[in-house]
Amino acid sequence: MIGRKLTDRLVRDGRLGKRDITRLALHDVVTPQAEAAPFPVESKTGDFVGAEAAAALVAERPDVIFHLAAVVSGEAEADFEKGYRINLDGTRHLFEAIRAIGGGYRPRVVFSSSIAVFGGPFPASIGDEFLSAPLTSYGTQKAISELLLADYTRRGFLDGIGIRLPTICVRPGLPNKAASGFFSNVIREPLAGKPAILPVSEAVRHWYASPRSAIGFIMHAATLESEVIGPRRNFNMPGLSATVEEQIAALRTVAGPGVVARIQREADATIAGIVSGWPQNFDAKRAMALGFTAAEKTFEDIIRIHIEDELHGTFVH
Amino acid sequence: MIGRKLTDRLVRDGRLGKRDITRLALHDVVTPQAEAAPFPVESKTGDFVGAEAAAALVAERPDVIFHLAAVVSGEAEADFEKGYRINLDGTRHLFEAIRAIGGGYRPRVVFSSSIAVFGGPFPASIGDEFLSAPLTSYGTQKAISELLLADYTRRGFLDGIGIRLPTICVRPGLPNKAASGFFSNVIREPLAGKPAILPVSEAVRHWYASPRSAIGFIMHAATLESEVIGPRRNFNMPGLSATVEEQIAALRTVAGPGVVARIQREADATIAGIVSGWPQNFDAKRAMALGFTAAEKTFEDIIRIHIEDELHGTFVH
Repeated sequence: MIGRKLTDRLVRDGRLGKRDITRLALHDVVTPQAEAAPFPVESKTGDFVGAEAAAALVAERPDVIFHLAAVVSGEAEADFEKGYRINLDGTRHLFEAIRAIGGGYRPRVVFSSSIAVFGGPFPASIGDEFLSAPLTSYGTQKAISELLLADYTRRGFLDGIGIRLPTICVRPGLPNKAASGFFSNVIREPLAGKPAILPVSEAVRHWYASPRSAIGFIMHAATLESEVIGPRRNFNMPGLSATVEEQIAALRTVAGPGVVARIQREADATIAGIVSGWPQNFDAKRAMALGFTAAEKTFEDIIRIHIEDELHGTFVH
Repeated sequence: MIGRKLTDRLVRDGRLGKRDITRLALHDVVTPQAEAAPFPVESKTGDFVGAEAAAALVAERPDVIFHLAAVVSGEAEADFEKGYRINLDGTRHLFEAIRAIGGGYRPRVVFSSSIAVFGGPFPASIGDEFLSAPLTSYGTQKAISELLLADYTRRGFLDGIGIRLPTICVRPGLPNKAASGFFSNVIREPLAGKPAILPVSEAVRHWYASPRSAIGFIMHAATLESEVIGPRRNFNMPGLSATVEEQIAALRTVAGPGVVARIQREADATIAGIVSGWPQNFDAKRAMALGFTAAEKTFEDIIRIHIEDELHGTFVH
């Protein structure tokens, strides 16, 4: 989802920071699509895993590499070996392939990390110096990739920046069975005239950014001067901390009580248990000082952005 | 050095916690030696690197594994590939070999990590929730190994605990050209009647533990109940924060001004620069709550322990 939106944005802008885009190569497990672009676009299909595949990916020495590839949290937990193979070894192969080119080649690598690098117990608000003690294999693999990114950058092999995205909301597409799916489902489905299940208490607090913000963060990360980033290359992104109650109130404000009435409460102790271990709030000082800025200030904004960007400005009243 | 001292202690005690030791296997790049022991001791020689070697190491299903193997900081910085091969891949192969045995095999793995997982800027005292942002490849490899240790433990493949040892002082043996060597040299050499060079200002503060404490920490880590350790498996060990000025004053108190006079001041800007990026002080609350206790309360104690344990109670006045 993020990859597709980023592609659309790059094609639309035709430039990245001050530089025109002259060429775009896309790589995914399913053949990635790009709209008609003012520059050549190449699509490659394949697993993100082998050393040879990594070498082929960087052979043409791209100036900027967006590394968004990952086996998601649930799958990395269900399939231990696959998670490590894709999320850790795949990342390392990519970094090694860049290092192998040498000769002063030092591309900007934007790595999409995750707040899953953090594990409870948490302070009321997670600061920039809070430890990574993940409680999932996915979070572990992301935390390790962050460490590699920083060391390869320090050694001069690449010019990396890792950004820990908040939970993306409202995630477009079909309802998602991930434990985090309901955070988006309870907004997206009612706006589409469909019922949605809320499996947790309205007191649950979580940390959000809109897809528009996520793309903005990635674009900003691609264009920051390396020197201003400093030696700590991994950042908590700005976001919005909100309770489910606040989400629902925002939906009522933006779309009315008829839409809110489509939310059905069905407690699910398993989901509630998983979600209770997730971060709820951050103080993303360092990222904000570097100019990372969210597109939204309130949860109402998050809903309006969804309506604008995904629903052509309308919804089912 | 730690491995040899640990072996001596295990042989002397003949037991670990409440259990008699029935067998000891030693593995090192040079053939490890053990004194006459009341149980069988096997010595293996080899690089700590391959998947096959790792499988052979754990084939007899030891109950407790002490993983102290590492390419040291300077070498890991000088030889990027070797550092990752030994310190990261070697560790991962060991953990994978344990996982491959399966069938409920879940040994206690005591991993010697390092305060090199931390990189400045630091707070006045580093707490248990401070981030790992290493500034060396060695520190990166240790931090990654810690994350693997925690995840393999959480998944039930092993029962790991990582301990971040302070700088060991007084390190026995020959003067060491490592940037940290002088911390021990300025005590050990004068006590042996020899000159020693102090390359930094006396205001430099650092974080110490005696070899006796280090062995005590490792033994304690081997015998802690898994449940009391909790999900965060990596710990800052207790230590002693002291300035070089305090070190020298302690040497004067314990050994007299004649010994102190053997310290020669020869400023070295390179060493001073390296050392300025190192941690100076910790608040090791979690470890202390779990009963990790240093053998020393003052730097005088550190010097007395060296005289007792390494010099048969005497020194060159």
